[in-house]
Amino acid sequence: MEEYLNFAIKIAYYAGGAIKEKFLKDKKSEFKSDRTIVTEVDKNINAYLIEEVKKRYPEHSVNGEEEKYVNNSKYVWVCDPIDGTGMFMAGIPVSVFSLALVVDGTVQVGVVYDPFLDKMYTAIRGKGAFCNEKKIHVNNLHLGDLGYRLNYEIWNNAKYDTMRVASKLLSKVKISSIGSVARSCMAIAEGMFACDLFPGTEHGNCDIAASSLIVEEAGGIVTDMEGNPQKYDSGINGAIISNGVSHYEVLEQLEKINF
Amino acid sequence: MEEYLNFAIKIAYYAGGAIKEKFLKDKKSEFKSDRTIVTEVDKNINAYLIEEVKKRYPEHSVNGEEEKYVNNSKYVWVCDPIDGTGMFMAGIPVSVFSLALVVDGTVQVGVVYDPFLDKMYTAIRGKGAFCNEKKIHVNNLHLGDLGYRLNYEIWNNAKYDTMRVASKLLSKVKISSIGSVARSCMAIAEGMFACDLFPGTEHGNCDIAASSLIVEEAGGIVTDMEGNPQKYDSGINGAIISNGVSHYEVLEQLEKINF
Repeated sequence: MEEYLNFAIKIAYYAGGAIKEKFLKDKKSEFKSDRTIVTEVDKNINAYLIEEVKKRYPEHSVNGEEEKYVNNSKYVWVCDPIDGTGMFMAGIPVSVFSLALVVDGTVQVGVVYDPFLDKMYTAIRGKGAFCNEKKIHVNNLHLGDLGYRLNYEIWNNAKYDTMRVASKLLSKVKISSIGSVARSCMAIAEGMFACDLFPGTEHGNCDIAASSLIVEEAGGIVTDMEGNPQKYDSGINGAIISNGVSHYEVLEQLEKINF
Repeated sequence: MEEYLNFAIKIAYYAGGAIKEKFLKDKKSEFKSDRTIVTEVDKNINAYLIEEVKKRYPEHSVNGEEEKYVNNSKYVWVCDPIDGTGMFMAGIPVSVFSLALVVDGTVQVGVVYDPFLDKMYTAIRGKGAFCNEKKIHVNNLHLGDLGYRLNYEIWNNAKYDTMRVASKLLSKVKISSIGSVARSCMAIAEGMFACDLFPGTEHGNCDIAASSLIVEEAGGIVTDMEGNPQKYDSGINGAIISNGVSHYEVLEQLEKINF
C-alpha cells in the first residue's frame, strides 16, 4: 500500500499546483445540470489521473467526479479533482484535492491535499493518519461542549436536509458551511472541527472516500446518514463524519428529526 | 481622508502580520459569554490600534470588538481585529482584519485586509472600491440566476434567523457560511458572491463597518435587516449586504418570512 500512497501523493502535488496556479485567474467554467460548477482545472486534473493510472496500473479503474475509466477491477481510484469548486471559483482558499484507492469497496489509501496551506493529509488503513508526515488526531469534544464545531454541506433536492439538522443543533454547537467537505473533514482529523454532515449520494463517494479513511485513522467515525458503514466505490447514502466520541450523540439528534 | 486611509492601511498590514504569524501555531484563547472565542491575537491587535490612535489622533475614539477607547468624538475608528476568529483558531484561512473611520455615524474610510491572499481592500466614500489598488465591482446577478451565491452568518439567540431565510432560498441560490462576514463581503465587492445576511446587533458594527463602505463603493447596497440605512458607530440592526441589483429581491423574501 506504501507504493499506492506514493503514487497518490504525486498526483496530489500535481493537482495542487494546477489549483493554485489558476486560483486567482480567469477560469473557463460551466454549470452542470445540478447547478454546480465545473472548471477546466477539474477536468484537466481528472484527465491527468486517468492517464497516469493507465500507465502505471492499467488494470485498475478510475471513478473521478468529472470522468471515469471503467475496467471492472476491484481496485478503484476514487477522486474529486477539486472539492469545493464553487469556492475555488470565488477566490476563497478552502478547496482541496482528494484521491482514494478503494479495494472491494473499502478505502485502503487516502490522500487529501490543501495547496493553499501546503498540507498533505495521508492515511493507509491500519497505519494512522498524518499531515505532512506528522501524526494527527481528532478532538474529544462532546455535543454541547464549548468549541464543538459542526460543518455541513447542503444543496437543493438533496435526500438529507442537513440544514434542518444543523438548525436544530444551533444552541449546542458552532455551525459553518465552508464550501468543501473534504477540507472540513481534514479539520476534523486535525482536531479542529468535531463533525460534518454530508448529504451527498450519487457522486458523494468521490468527495469523501479519502477523507473517510483519514478521519477514521485519526480516531474518528464515519458512517452513512443512518449510522451504517458503507462502500466507497460508487454512490453513497450521505455521511456523518465525526470525532468519534460525539458520533452517536449526533446520530441520535438526526433520528429525532426523522429524515 | 487619504491620510486616514493610509493610517488604516498601516494598521491593517501590522494586524495581517500578527494573524499570519500565529495562524498555524498554538494560540492562547478563551470563550466569551456568548460562546464565541477570543484569542490573544485579537486582543493584541485591538490594543495596538488604540495605542496608535492615541499617538496620532488623540481626540478620536476607538470602538474595537475587544476593547474601546471612548473620547466623545464624532470620529470613531471601528475595528474587528480578526473577523472570523473561530476559523482562525481552526486553521481555515478565511479570517480578515477590518477597520473603518466612522464620522457622525457614517463610514468615510474602510479597509479590510486578507493576510492569507495578501489582498488589501480599501474605500474612501465617493471614490470607489479597490483591491490592491485595482478597482473592483460587484456582479449583476439576480436572485435565481446561475452562480448566485448567498453567504450568511448565524448564531444562537440572534434576533434574526438567517438560517431560516437561507433555507427558504435554497432552490434559488448556492449557500455557504464560510465563517467571516467581512471576507464574504469582500467576495461580494469583487463580484464573486452576491449577498450576505448578517444577524449581528450589539457589536455587529465592528464586523461590517468597513465592509459596508467597500461594498457600496463597489456598486452594492447595504441596509439593515429591514431595508433601512443605519449608523455604524454603535450596535446595528443586522445587515443585508448585496450586489445591489438583487437587494430588494432578497429583502422581499425576508419580509415574507416575517421575522
